[in-house]
Amino acid sequence: MVRLGLIGAGRIGKVHAENIVSRIREVELKTIADIYLNNDIKEWAHSIGIKNVTNDAGEIFSDPEIDAVLICSSSDTHEQFIIEAAKAGKHIFCEKPIGSDIEKIKEALEIVENKGVKLQVGFVRRFDHNHKKVHDAVKEGKIGEPYLVKITSRDPQPPPLNYLKVSGGLFFDMTIHDFDMARYLSGSEVEEVFVHAAVLVDPAIGEIGDFDTAIITMRFKNGMLGVIDNCRKAIYGYDQRTEVHGSRGCIMVENDRHNTSMLLTNEGTLSEKLLWFFLERYNDAFAMELKSFIDAIINDTQPPVTGIDGLKAVLVAEAAAISAKEGKPIKVNEI
Amino acid sequence: MVRLGLIGAGRIGKVHAENIVSRIREVELKTIADIYLNNDIKEWAHSIGIKNVTNDAGEIFSDPEIDAVLICSSSDTHEQFIIEAAKAGKHIFCEKPIGSDIEKIKEALEIVENKGVKLQVGFVRRFDHNHKKVHDAVKEGKIGEPYLVKITSRDPQPPPLNYLKVSGGLFFDMTIHDFDMARYLSGSEVEEVFVHAAVLVDPAIGEIGDFDTAIITMRFKNGMLGVIDNCRKAIYGYDQRTEVHGSRGCIMVENDRHNTSMLLTNEGTLSEKLLWFFLERYNDAFAMELKSFIDAIINDTQPPVTGIDGLKAVLVAEAAAISAKEGKPIKVNEI
Amino acid sequence: MVRLGLIGAGRIGKVHAENIVSRIREVELKTIADIYLNNDIKEWAHSIGIKNVTNDAGEIFSDPEIDAVLICSSSDTHEQFIIEAAKAGKHIFCEKPIGSDIEKIKEALEIVENKGVKLQVGFVRRFDHNHKKVHDAVKEGKIGEPYLVKITSRDPQPPPLNYLKVSGGLFFDMTIHDFDMARYLSGSEVEEVFVHAAVLVDPAIGEIGDFDTAIITMRFKNGMLGVIDNCRKAIYGYDQRTEVHGSRGCIMVENDRHNTSMLLTNEGTLSEKLLWFFLERYNDAFAMELKSFIDAIINDTQPPVTGIDGLKAVLVAEAAAISAKEGKPIKVNEI
Amino acid sequence: MVRLGLIGAGRIGKVHAENIVSRIREVELKTIADIYLNNDIKEWAHSIGIKNVTNDAGEIFSDPEIDAVLICSSSDTHEQFIIEAAKAGKHIFCEKPIGSDIEKIKEALEIVENKGVKLQVGFVRRFDHNHKKVHDAVKEGKIGEPYLVKITSRDPQPPPLNYLKVSGGLFFDMTIHDFDMARYLSGSEVEEVFVHAAVLVDPAIGEIGDFDTAIITMRFKNGMLGVIDNCRKAIYGYDQRTEVHGSRGCIMVENDRHNTSMLLTNEGTLSEKLLWFFLERYNDAFAMELKSFIDAIINDTQPPVTGIDGLKAVLVAEAAAISAKEGKPIKVNEI
Repeated sequence: MVRLGLIGAGRIGKVHAENIVSRIREVELKTIADIYLNNDIKEWAHSIGIKNVTNDAGEIFSDPEIDAVLICSSSDTHEQFIIEAAKAGKHIFCEKPIGSDIEKIKEALEIVENKGVKLQVGFVRRFDHNHKKVHDAVKEGKIGEPYLVKITSRDPQPPPLNYLKVSGGLFFDMTIHDFDMARYLSGSEVEEVFVHAAVLVDPAIGEIGDFDTAIITMRFKNGMLGVIDNCRKAIYGYDQRTEVHGSRGCIMVENDRHNTSMLLTNEGTLSEKLLWFFLERYNDAFAMELKSFIDAIINDTQPPVTGIDGLKAVLVAEAAAISAKEGKPIKVNEI
Repeated sequence: MVRLGLIGAGRIGKVHAENIVSRIREVELKTIADIYLNNDIKEWAHSIGIKNVTNDAGEIFSDPEIDAVLICSSSDTHEQFIIEAAKAGKHIFCEKPIGSDIEKIKEALEIVENKGVKLQVGFVRRFDHNHKKVHDAVKEGKIGEPYLVKITSRDPQPPPLNYLKVSGGLFFDMTIHDFDMARYLSGSEVEEVFVHAAVLVDPAIGEIGDFDTAIITMRFKNGMLGVIDNCRKAIYGYDQRTEVHGSRGCIMVENDRHNTSMLLTNEGTLSEKLLWFFLERYNDAFAMELKSFIDAIINDTQPPVTGIDGLKAVLVAEAAAISAKEGKPIKVNEI
Repeated sequence: MVRLGLIGAGRIGKVHAENIVSRIREVELKTIADIYLNNDIKEWAHSIGIKNVTNDAGEIFSDPEIDAVLICSSSDTHEQFIIEAAKAGKHIFCEKPIGSDIEKIKEALEIVENKGVKLQVGFVRRFDHNHKKVHDAVKEGKIGEPYLVKITSRDPQPPPLNYLKVSGGLFFDMTIHDFDMARYLSGSEVEEVFVHAAVLVDPAIGEIGDFDTAIITMRFKNGMLGVIDNCRKAIYGYDQRTEVHGSRGCIMVENDRHNTSMLLTNEGTLSEKLLWFFLERYNDAFAMELKSFIDAIINDTQPPVTGIDGLKAVLVAEAAAISAKEGKPIKVNEI
Repeated sequence: MVRLGLIGAGRIGKVHAENIVSRIREVELKTIADIYLNNDIKEWAHSIGIKNVTNDAGEIFSDPEIDAVLICSSSDTHEQFIIEAAKAGKHIFCEKPIGSDIEKIKEALEIVENKGVKLQVGFVRRFDHNHKKVHDAVKEGKIGEPYLVKITSRDPQPPPLNYLKVSGGLFFDMTIHDFDMARYLSGSEVEEVFVHAAVLVDPAIGEIGDFDTAIITMRFKNGMLGVIDNCRKAIYGYDQRTEVHGSRGCIMVENDRHNTSMLLTNEGTLSEKLLWFFLERYNDAFAMELKSFIDAIINDTQPPVTGIDGLKAVLVAEAAAISAKEGKPIKVNEI
């Protein structure tokens, strides 16, 4: 039995808590800490059978019964909580991004290393049935030598401006997942990145210095090329497609739909809508990633997504942000 | 809180028990009864947290704490357990088919009616995301007046001969689901049925007097026509397609796949396999049907699939069996 | 160079004439005969470069320069023209159905045989890129032993009542193509046929003694089963799907569309319409079948669709018509 | 009747000649000129009924009966032949690219303008049923304000090195079509282009100073972003997909296949191969573009693809070539 503490009972924290309670065996969620603790959170916690609720994450770190911590608090707290958790000897699952301050991330990773605790970063899409299939096909050599990776990643609608203001910007908030996907699918590291970014969806997004639409191209260390296209608005739903083209073929995945229906009328054939957003689309993947984390603890193996993976994606995001600002390609190893 | 007793801890009984434990709220599975109780069953029951395990269904009927019974025992016991449960004042969820002896089914339904308990029959496919979409589109008038219903229903492989010998035959064991689907999708009753049946998969199936392949056509009371094609062997997986064609269009559903991948090579484009069989394909639908049953108890409403639905499907199956034997169309109201 | 005469300049006759002129080499269409010759026909003929136009088919038969005749006149004239053409030593391409009077068809085939001329019947769908692929996959053993053949065949809209009155009825006019397809895909002969037919599209069709909707099941000599569903109205276009299921897999074809577009909006994904009707759908196949006929003449080989094929489809259609009328299965060898 | 002369009887010249002879009315191909005239060309010309064959394009220019010239000679001769044809008062259809020397192209366009002859450039993909649908949907506002255009364009296999050496390089030979497509689909002009290019398919291509794989991103004058991915090798066939994403939806087209077949086996579902290369894929489009050219002459309207379109694509190609060489984004108006 692995005992967990959860820090941060926002949207994603709740997803993980509910998955732990209902879908993962050999694990107990003992304590939930949220700095903005209120009655809503308390009621929700009790409704899923969690009794220990606190506004002090320290209670989790000092509890000798707790083996591991899930960090689901706001992004700017991640590095600090990783450091505290590692010092307390707890294994760590940290939501993406692993942080925004590169030096502090490196410091945190060093402490994690020294303390010998496990650290997994929440790049949930690696656990998706579709993208995993692309990865596996590439790895198994089904497309031969890989040439190109293509990622389409569009949100159904922009988040609230208040969220965007503290999100770290498009590349740290949204593309960070795609940068990890690019590394995951290519099996290589991003060497250089170039960005064409724009404000096309909502001028207010531009006014806070962010972008809502971007095309990001990459050159990888293994010679491959890659492209990501991002948009904060896709009225038809959450568009999540990946593709790798190589010397012996091409593997690609389409979007998921609620059902396979086709309605044939005099206007054409209407297929079902896409899943609306990430909670629906990556619902099973969220459970799978936590299972993998628990398994790594139980079996004392390395988690499938590490702190280094977290850092590398941040480095590429930083390079992308600079490229968008300066209008030129940026080498990642110069970050 | 609704308290349940489960009779029959075979394959399907286990599916329901595990769904109750992990996926349905406001319900407790108190007791499991299986006439062939053994250590395997006991261990499994304990592993999912059930303590009361017995070989005597009577313990369930006599337990005043138990509100409802799930009948998952062998088909030939269904009518008798329904009668006993109803007499004990328990609500009843009964796996398909509701029975094989038409007079006894009618007797059981009368007792259910008199005792005022709820009875739901396990036609799980009505709760499937795909077939439900077809049903809803027809009901909402999206295809206008319906003309034709088409059902493709093929198993990946035949069950063991020992199972087939006591299964009641193709029409009671396999097509029974499709007969219910035909009623569900057409919104009407089968008036006449004609069967072309054959033994093409395995001669041993013929030797025990059964068929493994059949095409069944139906004329409905509302004038519609319908066709089911069945086969006990589809090497590519569980083939479950439905379609209704009408005056303003046609609604159809394709099979589910594990993922949306396409591998393009010099041989063509290879898409993922179908789901293998009903436990995978109707996994969510099994949970949904039990939730509906529990909801009907809690809200004191009529279950979405009734004892009459159970009986009607049996009457069509009986007509089909006679048609296959006698080589002529059979009117269902003559059964 | 093969010289042709065309009898009957109606819709299908014009299709063949235009294909000969524009798409088939080593062939000349010398004369067009139509009993209802008028100025429209003359103008059309001249527009495609045909100078000899007559209302007397005899001119074709007596012309020693003409090698072969295309019979595209009304169905009730087919047998007689076949006989006259064969007696005149001309090779014959005859539109479907080969005739309606079974004795007269047999007489015609005997004369064709005695005169040693070639006879091809216009079952154009055998030359379609989709259905041919199904046939080839079955023949090459890609699905193992075939179990079931399924044909969906629906017209976009019913023909005019005046046409229907002289069409010979649903089974001779429409299903005749599907009966040939059933033979072509199964590689076997229909042994028994059963029909559930109805009038659902237009009561006027029922008033002239015909049906507009039908499900036809078949048992084949090789043990296979088959089903055809027909409807005179499919508002979404010409629905032409075929499928064969067997011991090692299933081969099926979808409908053709004008393009591969998908429009994703908040209502779902809208794909392009189907092709509207047979002139669009089988446009290339019409040219292919004539090329095959010309090739058979030039190379002195047997045409790919023979008079026997024409007769067999008529026998099955006759059995189907009786089944629909009498409400029982009919053996084809009793016709 | 429009009379044509053809210059250059290579692969693409033959395609046009055969389309004119067999598929386009009101037009006569009077003379074929090829500087490398040989017996093969003569025999081919006679086989399609062309009697005048010469090695001197001047015979075409000086022939008062000839209304228009098709320039299908090697790319480096295009501007000069345009100039000569315009001076001779002939309308001009010129294969892509319109040329490689930007100043000379501008000179040629000026002469065309002064002489009042029509000039159409062979961007055949605008006449394709798929890409045209994307264009039309964007233009009709079906996706709202366009944000992004994506073009996937991969050849099945690299051309011979001898061809590549004189091809002008990837961007002038292959991407030129995609640059025109980007302008056509976006309805705007490329403002800036950035290229990540590589040699992944064949080192020999790198040795002659060319690339075989590239990702090209673009910023358009209307604010849209765009991306093209190119590869000289796609073992699964000619990959030609386009997509435009906008405020109200996304329109995309898939590749064409030879038929719609699906073979379901225990390995998955195998769909048909893609069409192999441009002669198959754009077969109908080649005929459509010539018809449009002939129509523009007959009706005295502007051709659907003009000399300006030819020039603009060349300017973007030039910018792309510089970007690939210098590793930075290039503004097209600085070319």
